Amino acid sequence: MKKTALIMAGGRGERFWPKSRKSFPKQFLSLTDDGKTMIQLTVERIRPLVELEDIFISTNKDYKKLVLEQLPGIPEENILCEPVGRNTAPCIGLGAVHIARKHKDAIMMVLPSDHLIKYNKMFLNTIKSGCEIAEKGANLVTIGITPDYPETGYGYIKFNPDETDGHAYAVERFVEKPDLKTAKEYLETEEYLWNSGMFLWRVSTILSNIETFLPDLHAGLGTIQASIGTEEQEAVLEKTFAGFSSVSIDYGIMEKAKNIYILPGTFGWDDVGSWLAVGRIKKSNENGNVVDGNVITIDSRDNIIQGEEKLIATIGIEDLIIVDTKDATLICEKNSAADIKKVLENLKICNRDEYI
Amino acid sequence: MKKTALIMAGGRGERFWPKSRKSFPKQFLSLTDDGKTMIQLTVERIRPLVELEDIFISTNKDYKKLVLEQLPGIPEENILCEPVGRNTAPCIGLGAVHIARKHKDAIMMVLPSDHLIKYNKMFLNTIKSGCEIAEKGANLVTIGITPDYPETGYGYIKFNPDETDGHAYAVERFVEKPDLKTAKEYLETEEYLWNSGMFLWRVSTILSNIETFLPDLHAGLGTIQASIGTEEQEAVLEKTFAGFSSVSIDYGIMEKAKNIYILPGTFGWDDVGSWLAVGRIKKSNENGNVVDGNVITIDSRDNIIQGEEKLIATIGIEDLIIVDTKDATLICEKNSAADIKKVLENLKICNRDEYI
Repeated sequence: MKKTALIMAGGRGERFWPKSRKSFPKQFLSLTDDGKTMIQLTVERIRPLVELEDIFISTNKDYKKLVLEQLPGIPEENILCEPVGRNTAPCIGLGAVHIARKHKDAIMMVLPSDHLIKYNKMFLNTIKSGCEIAEKGANLVTIGITPDYPETGYGYIKFNPDETDGHAYAVERFVEKPDLKTAKEYLETEEYLWNSGMFLWRVSTILSNIETFLPDLHAGLGTIQASIGTEEQEAVLEKTFAGFSSVSIDYGIMEKAKNIYILPGTFGWDDVGSWLAVGRIKKSNENGNVVDGNVITIDSRDNIIQGEEKLIATIGIEDLIIVDTKDATLICEKNSAADIKKVLENLKICNRDEYI
Repeated sequence: MKKTALIMAGGRGERFWPKSRKSFPKQFLSLTDDGKTMIQLTVERIRPLVELEDIFISTNKDYKKLVLEQLPGIPEENILCEPVGRNTAPCIGLGAVHIARKHKDAIMMVLPSDHLIKYNKMFLNTIKSGCEIAEKGANLVTIGITPDYPETGYGYIKFNPDETDGHAYAVERFVEKPDLKTAKEYLETEEYLWNSGMFLWRVSTILSNIETFLPDLHAGLGTIQASIGTEEQEAVLEKTFAGFSSVSIDYGIMEKAKNIYILPGTFGWDDVGSWLAVGRIKKSNENGNVVDGNVITIDSRDNIIQGEEKLIATIGIEDLIIVDTKDATLICEKNSAADIKKVLENLKICNRDEYI
């Protein structure tokens, strides 16, 4: 069966400030040594399975230009701009009707645009296995990551270790971000995986599930589908999409649907959640510093220093994150990386939008 | 007797990099809350005793423009540009002949341009006492600072506590920067003061001492003095000055001369030797941060942050010196402030003169 992909690239991540901005979020940043951006790597990763013309990018108007620049091979009509953010269910539904219009039925992969994967071939093999399961019938397939530690920032998925389909396990339920105690209990059961936000299904399967569990969304998607290619396409999308309820695919579909399978991903997944990830991903020098740009370090150890043209000189520092951009510089203790949001709150309160 | 001053402003201090540069040294920086530069404060401090037309600035060609800009009231002919650096004895000698040409005899104060003084009236009272002693005869007067701790970066002056002239003590000897053990011994004797580099004498007294102890310098100064106001002034200075030996006033005169008195300065002296001084001099906020410029601090304590227009955001940091300029940013642990020279060495080795 034809393989297609919907890459979700509407996120406005704040955790890579000051490099990421409202107008330039994480998926468009290069955070790896190869110089490619996160979204470029995402497309490149699935290219052995999916033609460029079958890759759809879900984003919003503000980022359309960035998508076109960074992904010149993707047809412009495949860049789907949500008029407003309505969470993942309407986003995926919009992707599904565009794919359905192009192909009678097809496998639809749903992939985040801002995660990293170390073992790309292994990733493709997992995706292929997922496609086989999805193709077989009315199955919804998700990819789960075996937890390294009881992370409280991710959702979890409970599977039944005794009910398998090839390498996949039947899913019992999706759960929200747990507290630390609960996360520890999940790990002890050995029956929970991290929710990676990656899904695989037939377009027909996801649309029939939307019809069952989110009938209003399904009706609206029908209206939108009918307008595609007409002069009213944009106006209909604008009007109909704004009327959708904001609901996640997890809550709206996955927690209610049947025949859900999870494939454990063993391909080295990283959600690149903060500047600390850059310390894991990029090569460090002999002093443990991960350095980019015009930098001199003296007696400095285990820092992440991301500069540009401007000279940055460090002396006697340890465990800091230093990020320099044209108009703003961040100097942050590694353990405080999550508090970048406090800087952004401060900037919002003071109406200093030029820095956000 | 007429009071005149020679302010020495030829220094090329590196310790305030990246704000200080070869082309913009410390004496031209503002490091205090009032926004005035070090040399402006030096002139302002002595104005109640000395007319602007009797203030001479010893510097070099590279800084003449800066002096004119920052001290618009000083006559241009009072800005004495040394063609080459030959240490303090030739510098002071050059000042002396310029003053001698203007006044038959006069009190000549010699003052560094890059120190700070907290109690300015008390400073003036000390200077007045010094002038009285200097005026009385062939006395050379210096101002000493009572040590707070056994600093190894300053010279010391041994005085005789039993031989006094008013508040001044007879000087026994000048000593170079000691090691820590020696510095501690000095403090225990209670007979050593820090050498502040401030001197007071009659122009006639210093010139006759130069004649006695540095006769070659005296001869050259005579040649220079004769050329002042003629068309050859610059050429004679250029040629004669280059022929002078490099010698300090301490070594060349003070260690050999008689009738030297020291006045203990009790006016809150700071040589502003590194960025740490800015932490002492400027007001800190409730978290102990000394902050200038466009700065947001989150959970940050006891830092010195000197920014400009560009936004600097800090999170969770402590005891750092952060200095941002147009083309370079320093991030330095407070205890490593003295290692700024290592950055400059690195830049020199790599021929990156644009940053020096």
